[in-house]
Amino acid sequence: MMFIARHGLKFKLYTYFKRHLFCSTIKHANKSYRRKYLSRMSLYLPKTLKEEGLKCTSQDLFLYNEVLFPSHTGAYCYLPLGLRALEKLIRLIDEEMQAIGAQKIAMPSMVRSSLWKKTGRWDTPELFKLKDRHSKEYCLGPTHEELVTDMVSQYGNIPHRRLPIMLYQITKKFRDEMHPKYALLRGREFEMKDLYTFDTDEDTAKETYSMVCDSYCTIFDRLKLDYVKVEGSTGNIGGKLSHEFHLPATIGEDSLYLCNKCGYGSNEELIDAEDLLKNHVTCPKCKAEMTHAPGIEVGHAFLLGTKYSKVFKTNYIDALQKKRLTEMGCYGLGVSRILQASVEVLCQDRKIRWPSLIAPYQVCIIPQMEGYGSEEFNRLSDELSDVLTSLPNLRNEVVIEDRIKSTVGKRIHQADAQGYPHVIVVGRKCLEEPRLYEVIDMVAGHKEFMTQEQIVDKFRHIETI
Amino acid sequence: MMFIARHGLKFKLYTYFKRHLFCSTIKHANKSYRRKYLSRMSLYLPKTLKEEGLKCTSQDLFLYNEVLFPSHTGAYCYLPLGLRALEKLIRLIDEEMQAIGAQKIAMPSMVRSSLWKKTGRWDTPELFKLKDRHSKEYCLGPTHEELVTDMVSQYGNIPHRRLPIMLYQITKKFRDEMHPKYALLRGREFEMKDLYTFDTDEDTAKETYSMVCDSYCTIFDRLKLDYVKVEGSTGNIGGKLSHEFHLPATIGEDSLYLCNKCGYGSNEELIDAEDLLKNHVTCPKCKAEMTHAPGIEVGHAFLLGTKYSKVFKTNYIDALQKKRLTEMGCYGLGVSRILQASVEVLCQDRKIRWPSLIAPYQVCIIPQMEGYGSEEFNRLSDELSDVLTSLPNLRNEVVIEDRIKSTVGKRIHQADAQGYPHVIVVGRKCLEEPRLYEVIDMVAGHKEFMTQEQIVDKFRHIETI
Repeated sequence: MMFIARHGLKFKLYTYFKRHLFCSTIKHANKSYRRKYLSRMSLYLPKTLKEEGLKCTSQDLFLYNEVLFPSHTGAYCYLPLGLRALEKLIRLIDEEMQAIGAQKIAMPSMVRSSLWKKTGRWDTPELFKLKDRHSKEYCLGPTHEELVTDMVSQYGNIPHRRLPIMLYQITKKFRDEMHPKYALLRGREFEMKDLYTFDTDEDTAKETYSMVCDSYCTIFDRLKLDYVKVEGSTGNIGGKLSHEFHLPATIGEDSLYLCNKCGYGSNEELIDAEDLLKNHVTCPKCKAEMTHAPGIEVGHAFLLGTKYSKVFKTNYIDALQKKRLTEMGCYGLGVSRILQASVEVLCQDRKIRWPSLIAPYQVCIIPQMEGYGSEEFNRLSDELSDVLTSLPNLRNEVVIEDRIKSTVGKRIHQADAQGYPHVIVVGRKCLEEPRLYEVIDMVAGHKEFMTQEQIVDKFRHIETI
Repeated sequence: MMFIARHGLKFKLYTYFKRHLFCSTIKHANKSYRRKYLSRMSLYLPKTLKEEGLKCTSQDLFLYNEVLFPSHTGAYCYLPLGLRALEKLIRLIDEEMQAIGAQKIAMPSMVRSSLWKKTGRWDTPELFKLKDRHSKEYCLGPTHEELVTDMVSQYGNIPHRRLPIMLYQITKKFRDEMHPKYALLRGREFEMKDLYTFDTDEDTAKETYSMVCDSYCTIFDRLKLDYVKVEGSTGNIGGKLSHEFHLPATIGEDSLYLCNKCGYGSNEELIDAEDLLKNHVTCPKCKAEMTHAPGIEVGHAFLLGTKYSKVFKTNYIDALQKKRLTEMGCYGLGVSRILQASVEVLCQDRKIRWPSLIAPYQVCIIPQMEGYGSEEFNRLSDELSDVLTSLPNLRNEVVIEDRIKSTVGKRIHQADAQGYPHVIVVGRKCLEEPRLYEVIDMVAGHKEFMTQEQIVDKFRHIETI
């Protein structure tokens, strides 16, 4: 059957739709019902997924709680819960990047070999390389300095007033890790935010550098994560100056030295080898002794200078109409790494704890178990879901745990493990007057009976993204 | 400098920020200023980008107007305008997929060869193949039937009540096109929405099939695109039944036969070769003569049957506790292809015309040229931008074309070419009482002088996503 659709064809409420009334948003007469039932959403994954290699707590929690599914070594499928959290994290980063005037682009994953040969990085062992049917060679970009610098060089004569140019992307990157481990912490495919900046001179480039670092702080602050910013090595990327952002964690693969007196910190790579041997590292700023801590690297800033702009002749035109090389910076955030590292540091007793802002759903409603007048409890749960999802901040943030063959206790336990920040039990007290719901703050472990009005008052202030 | 951040650190208004006051969102005391100045956003790309091979109008328009940047044959960088449109299209598709209860996941790009060998598709010539450092072989997934079916098979015993399972992703796919052309229409990296469904039997699978097809119609309707749905060949994917969605366009590479009497349509691949030779094709439904039309394929639905579930033993448990194979469907939307094809069919006189819902920005404000009391016009433009971006639907939808060294006419011309649906000129009549702005509907070519109040009344109803 073919038909030619015309503008303004009305949205039809399909009969099939009714069969799925429970599973999703129904648009009807401008009113939205947004009931999401876990019986329709859960994937019933087996609780014993095989995984080779070293494991960490967050990895176990992600595999056990339908956040990730292991595809092959170092590569994972994001399941619905995981992808929701990831997409929220991406929105947060988008907000903060755009708040400093950076513009979002998306570059190809494949990068032609000639660009990487120009910068001498083609022999990096972690590059995934492949050929097309014309035998042209490419790598799967683990980072995109070459591509973006080449592109900006083709802009032609950028007027100096147009600088800084700040271009970022949030895309999948590839690395042929010899020994992938800890799931998203060291994988072969990962989501990265990479920002590239082009400035007129070192001074303005440094201003840009500190603005970007500040925006990283804002991002970690909004996630309510404790983090450290330390001086780092410029390594394979190169450049004049570099800082790293870490979440302190016992499984962290980076070794940091921190000064509790003046606040300076440094990656071990920058510490004098003799001092390390003597196990006595003094702070280069205030000479106090520095303490050692492991960290998971989640962000990195590089003041690149003209290392790449020189290769690709990425020029601008100064006030005197002279061509000059742009001063570059590049700035990475390990997006998928932040997703897992934040759970690694926040989890409690083998229960997922998300940074509240990126929890896949804010609220899990649990009606009474089957056989205790289920119809009424189910109706009240639906009603509560409708009330909460009519709040602008909770439109898509509420699920109903309607697998009522399980006890309430069992379902609270599962919601707890999956890290819903708020659980509301629709139990016996909902049949009394006034109707009382049991509201549980899963992070604080605090319970309270509240009326619908009190719940709305409390929940309308939850920040979501 | 290192510092340990604590929860609740206040957002700082950086001094550097002031330097960039013009470029972006400033958050301050809960009030948002969302002024976006084109002088800070334009990339000043040269207007003559080299591109090999065949070209089409939309491709030229995208390269000329800072929508795409050609990276290598068949691969493009999405510039800020292009990526905004793409992200809007993705949000639209997300809405409609979730409206039918589909759940979003994200699978790895690399797929291990063993899965593709199982289904006999490993020798597909368009596969990009690569090896890791352990010499294990992978392809870059052009589609993910193998991966998703294998994953769902590992769910174990899916209760029949849980079906249909509907999993989709919107991710980049790869195809080693021998001769890429028409930019995003036939590229080697492209964004695709792929949905995979698992049902109990052929009847329910057909219900799911028709529900998904209907949701595709809704998507094209919301984009206000004329499209045709025709019967298609099952080809390399396989299965029992297949339908294609096309945008009729002269550059379309698919050859369609359409019946104007009963509405049936079919891809040429399904038409009897002799009939084609005779140049006389009759409709199999009503026997009327069918007319020929070229089309750009933008969507495809396949009723797969058990082709893949058989290979991967993707079972469910029926009401009698018996194991049975799931009936599958797979459904693609060429997301990046829709982006360009829609402009290919809507563009007017070498000017970009976006489907209104996915236009990168809705409104372009153009203040009077420099030297005619610019300060006041600039102030009024900022004010108008603040007023419009305070409307919830236009929060991020307004730019100010502040390159006031150019004449108003030149800037209208450029805005027209780039496809802003609405242009507002802040000209001389804004100094009179009442203040009048020239509001241009760029698609209709209609001009009108309006007060700020009238503008707000008109623009608060624009649908955005």
